[in-house]
Amino acid sequence: MQIKLNRIDDKYLFQCTNSSGQSILLDNTSLPDAKGVSPMESVLMAVAACSGIDIISILKKQRQQISSFSAEVDGERVSVDEAKPFKKISVKFFLTGDIEASKAKKAADLSFEKYCSVTKTFQPNVSIEYKIFVNNEEV
Amino acid sequence: MQIKLNRIDDKYLFQCTNSSGQSILLDNTSLPDAKGVSPMESVLMAVAACSGIDIISILKKQRQQISSFSAEVDGERVSVDEAKPFKKISVKFFLTGDIEASKAKKAADLSFEKYCSVTKTFQPNVSIEYKIFVNNEEV
Repeated sequence: MQIKLNRIDDKYLFQCTNSSGQSILLDNTSLPDAKGVSPMESVLMAVAACSGIDIISILKKQRQQISSFSAEVDGERVSVDEAKPFKKISVKFFLTGDIEASKAKKAADLSFEKYCSVTKTFQPNVSIEYKIFVNNEEV
Repeated sequence: MQIKLNRIDDKYLFQCTNSSGQSILLDNTSLPDAKGVSPMESVLMAVAACSGIDIISILKKQRQQISSFSAEVDGERVSVDEAKPFKKISVKFFLTGDIEASKAKKAADLSFEKYCSVTKTFQPNVSIEYKIFVNNEEV
């Protein structure tokens, strides 16, 4: 897997492109005029999206009807020398639709225990917590 | 640090937004019509951008003139149960401009050894290799 990065201003705005030509903008968000998300924010986004793909994919196979799918991710950081890596990541998934609660819970368990390659890349360094809400009720 | 994710089609296209309202699109790139980058690709992008911010910031303080800055990142994955996390990430940085080679090398060393929070999040799980090219010569 290969990606490319190009600085596209005279500060820290990076256009990052995959092998199919799709790209995202990453930036130094400590500057007030940042036009992209920060690298650390994008790691939290990767966790939610990786697991989101698993959960939706599993529920689709089980013919569950997902009307909406969203997530909130909080990252807790810790000082290590001059860096501040993540120590704990907490994910909340919100699903609405004609979905059996136990199936949604099981799909999330499978993702975090087995399938999600992003999470596996930094476990056990980082502890991951997750909660699933189906039609506004935690399951 | 908090981010939000919203599924914006009926497949796997996610709009991921930071607290300032900047967003990126992540998607399931195993589908032919993916409109975003994959979560795993975004992790490689985060590594390059995080370290890129460090390197540019250090060189700016040293009054080096950077005309262009780009990077290529390769991620090597390994099968762990059903997942394929990264095992090794190789980064090449390409700088042009009026830049002392030894200063560029030192800036990259400082980033990967001390400052880059993305890298620190998954070390030592993942081994990181990096090379720096200044005006087309490896330093």
